[in-house]
Amino acid sequence: MDGRPASFTLGELAAALGATLDGDPCRVVTGVAPLETAGPDQITFLTDPRYREAARTSRAGAFLAAADASGLPAPTLRCASPHQALVQLLTMFHPSTAAPPGIDRSAVVAADARVDPNASIGPLAVVESGAVIGPRARLYALAYVGAGAEIGEDSILYPHVTVRDGVRIGRRVIIHAGAVIGADGFGYAFDGAAHRKIPQVGGVVIEDDVEIGANSTIDRATLGDTIVRRGTKIDNLVQIGHNVEIGEHSIIVAQVGISGSSRLGRGVVLGGQVGVADHVTLGDGVKVGAQSGVHADIPSGETRLGTPARPITQTKRILLTEARLPELARRLSSLERRVQRLEGGTAASAGGSTDDGGA
Amino acid sequence: MDGRPASFTLGELAAALGATLDGDPCRVVTGVAPLETAGPDQITFLTDPRYREAARTSRAGAFLAAADASGLPAPTLRCASPHQALVQLLTMFHPSTAAPPGIDRSAVVAADARVDPNASIGPLAVVESGAVIGPRARLYALAYVGAGAEIGEDSILYPHVTVRDGVRIGRRVIIHAGAVIGADGFGYAFDGAAHRKIPQVGGVVIEDDVEIGANSTIDRATLGDTIVRRGTKIDNLVQIGHNVEIGEHSIIVAQVGISGSSRLGRGVVLGGQVGVADHVTLGDGVKVGAQSGVHADIPSGETRLGTPARPITQTKRILLTEARLPELARRLSSLERRVQRLEGGTAASAGGSTDDGGA
Amino acid sequence: MDGRPASFTLGELAAALGATLDGDPCRVVTGVAPLETAGPDQITFLTDPRYREAARTSRAGAFLAAADASGLPAPTLRCASPHQALVQLLTMFHPSTAAPPGIDRSAVVAADARVDPNASIGPLAVVESGAVIGPRARLYALAYVGAGAEIGEDSILYPHVTVRDGVRIGRRVIIHAGAVIGADGFGYAFDGAAHRKIPQVGGVVIEDDVEIGANSTIDRATLGDTIVRRGTKIDNLVQIGHNVEIGEHSIIVAQVGISGSSRLGRGVVLGGQVGVADHVTLGDGVKVGAQSGVHADIPSGETRLGTPARPITQTKRILLTEARLPELARRLSSLERRVQRLEGGTAASAGGSTDDGGA
Repeated sequence: MDGRPASFTLGELAAALGATLDGDPCRVVTGVAPLETAGPDQITFLTDPRYREAARTSRAGAFLAAADASGLPAPTLRCASPHQALVQLLTMFHPSTAAPPGIDRSAVVAADARVDPNASIGPLAVVESGAVIGPRARLYALAYVGAGAEIGEDSILYPHVTVRDGVRIGRRVIIHAGAVIGADGFGYAFDGAAHRKIPQVGGVVIEDDVEIGANSTIDRATLGDTIVRRGTKIDNLVQIGHNVEIGEHSIIVAQVGISGSSRLGRGVVLGGQVGVADHVTLGDGVKVGAQSGVHADIPSGETRLGTPARPITQTKRILLTEARLPELARRLSSLERRVQRLEGGTAASAGGSTDDGGA
Repeated sequence: MDGRPASFTLGELAAALGATLDGDPCRVVTGVAPLETAGPDQITFLTDPRYREAARTSRAGAFLAAADASGLPAPTLRCASPHQALVQLLTMFHPSTAAPPGIDRSAVVAADARVDPNASIGPLAVVESGAVIGPRARLYALAYVGAGAEIGEDSILYPHVTVRDGVRIGRRVIIHAGAVIGADGFGYAFDGAAHRKIPQVGGVVIEDDVEIGANSTIDRATLGDTIVRRGTKIDNLVQIGHNVEIGEHSIIVAQVGISGSSRLGRGVVLGGQVGVADHVTLGDGVKVGAQSGVHADIPSGETRLGTPARPITQTKRILLTEARLPELARRLSSLERRVQRLEGGTAASAGGSTDDGGA
Repeated sequence: MDGRPASFTLGELAAALGATLDGDPCRVVTGVAPLETAGPDQITFLTDPRYREAARTSRAGAFLAAADASGLPAPTLRCASPHQALVQLLTMFHPSTAAPPGIDRSAVVAADARVDPNASIGPLAVVESGAVIGPRARLYALAYVGAGAEIGEDSILYPHVTVRDGVRIGRRVIIHAGAVIGADGFGYAFDGAAHRKIPQVGGVVIEDDVEIGANSTIDRATLGDTIVRRGTKIDNLVQIGHNVEIGEHSIIVAQVGISGSSRLGRGVVLGGQVGVADHVTLGDGVKVGAQSGVHADIPSGETRLGTPARPITQTKRILLTEARLPELARRLSSLERRVQRLEGGTAASAGGSTDDGGA
């Protein structure tokens, strides 16, 4: 983050955060730091009760904590939602600096591109023919916006971002370095001798307030649009295939892959490295645990885990039993011998499974 | 895709596709669209019989379908291979525009690089010393071609592609944005205190008609070459290690990782997120399901699934049984108690496994 | 690799490598090649006893091998550590060429950036305000160094690398093409309606002698630093979340994902595609097999495999039993029928599980 940390009195912070202050309102803090490293000039935060002990021994000059936090060794700002207040606190100490408007003289902007005068186009950025860059949008150095693409107001493209031709990016969208929006979807028709490329002539629509992580890839549709709806947050190295649609306010953790034409509802959460097969539908509020493989539709509100992704309680039961598989196999063999004895045979001849003891 | 959709009569399309036309040859269509969104000016397609119902209610002005398709509500072009015809149809409506030949004046091309006069080098692209760029090859803005590398005729490098020194790219190869061809392989020798880098002095050969997805990485060989053979298609975010060889016309879906020195035959298909260990050989036509882990050789023609990757029918049987594991464990415990009763003991003393009911 | 292979006599090589020479010291070799492809002018190597047979039929003009290797068909350099000697041999034949010092005139370097006169800044590279580039550091074309970032001496940034603002890179660090160091960590606070971004105001510290693979991403900390310690090697397409700390001399293979705030000790090895959950601690020397999922702390020195990552011997036993699951289920059903018979019932009425034969 650019910008230099400011300094505030606890009284100023209490007013800004709507917090109750337990301590001297004139005390000054010059930064925010975690419990372990905060010093007497800094404010720290206790947003997770698990760290209560660490808080008690912190050397911080002040605390941000929940209304009922107790035993803290320094002045404390108490809030109903300390997590939300932390967002505000960090923003106050690290305000984002607006980029200087204008086009860097080393940037290459097509004559017929429309760049808002309040947009900022960094060094060696490229804006191709017919592209539209909205007010206060910022292209960092070496960012690329293809022909006819649109970047909405207040959106940020970090270095080495590629927005291919015709892609539409909404407002306040953040695209981290190296992400590629609008590469061709992966579609071929085998003609008996070779894979013939199916032209990928659709587009990509990224709605407002979406964030896309570094080196993630979102492919353009074959026809129509690949869509990421409002407020959804996508982590690094995520792959989103052609014609996928992701609902509002979803969370897609790093290295997830979503295959072509799958649809995710609103508020879906996919853990890291999850894979979703093609043409699958996940309802609103579906949650899928890390590394799971989703091969079939999931109704709204369900939580799944594993490959294949099963209801989480079932998967947990399976995993617990799985851990005991060798023991179960031995018990089965032992039982076979006992039954054979009951039947009047002898253990030594209990066919086919006497190797279980060593499994 | 650049370029503006054209318009055709159904008669023209029938002639071009070698299709039989069921309807008015003078009717004009101005675009291709999916069944759900196509309007009266557009032609749609029914290439998958599963969508027959959606086709019947489509508002499309015309259809492309198989010879035996029936009940379609508008003029229909009938083809033996509608999937192949769709490729041609999309290409007709969205012809790829040839890039203007020549070197953009903002590009940086080494004095001793050889750029064909019909090649197109976009803004801020870099071509290093001794590199060769073939006829009609296209480097988009900000693409990088290292010293001594070769790009064959009609190949396309999208923005932010890195082709490192000495890499050889064939003809009609498409490399999507952000892909890195020829980074050092991952090789070290531990000297007891630190990992010493093994110089990676080999190269990479990408044969004709290969396509490489966005942000994929193909490492250079330690010695010799990493090779991707003719016609193979690689999706996004795929990792291909040093000295790997991939046979012709293979399909490598997104986020696959192939470790060093492994060899894939011709026509291999790896599903998304598959991992292949090092020094493994996969025969011709091998298919591996998504998320599988391959640790050993696979003979030609086999289909594998799971981690470890087993024959697919075996894995499916295992998965079915796995789903019932908690039940099987309970049945085993119950059986132990019954056997103990038969042996003359009592259920209460059936040692060690009475907790199964709650697993 | 740039640079042209040199030529050496076997006597020169023996002296340089500290090897014993078995053969003519005046014989000249002009390159290094693998066993299968080496010709009479080249030296090859036998570092792995598994390839002894291939060595015997090699056409190489000379061999590098262990002290006790026998039966080799050409002059042989014998070393105590042939693997280490190979590193040296490759370095002799392929010396890395120093980049010409200076700033390419197409690069964009902020007026207040400090670039050492012996650093090399390639074409169209960008160095932002306040950044520091150390002696002999090399930025390839199109590399990006953000405001206030520091690149230590002798470090290399390949094309399209992004080092964001404030990131500190040590000495002799190699960052491969497309890697992104210092993108925002993935952190949000849900306010009941939307995910509010938690400002990521920390940094990244990459210590000396680290190598980072192509298109890998290492996020900046929320507060404090994400740290990769001295000598650690990271492969391609790896994701390292905010506030992660990785100990010295660790090995992180391709496509691994490490979630926020997790800590890895010294000498940790993570196989390809491993996922590590957040806030997890892995002790020194921990090894985790490919594709595993780590959800809990692992004590020093342990080797784990699977999802969840269990002790490797346990996982191997589970996998062996798992392969026999359908058979075990059938045996269980059969046993139930036998017990029922013993109890005086009839097999036909053995409720609920007679479908096992077909599972």
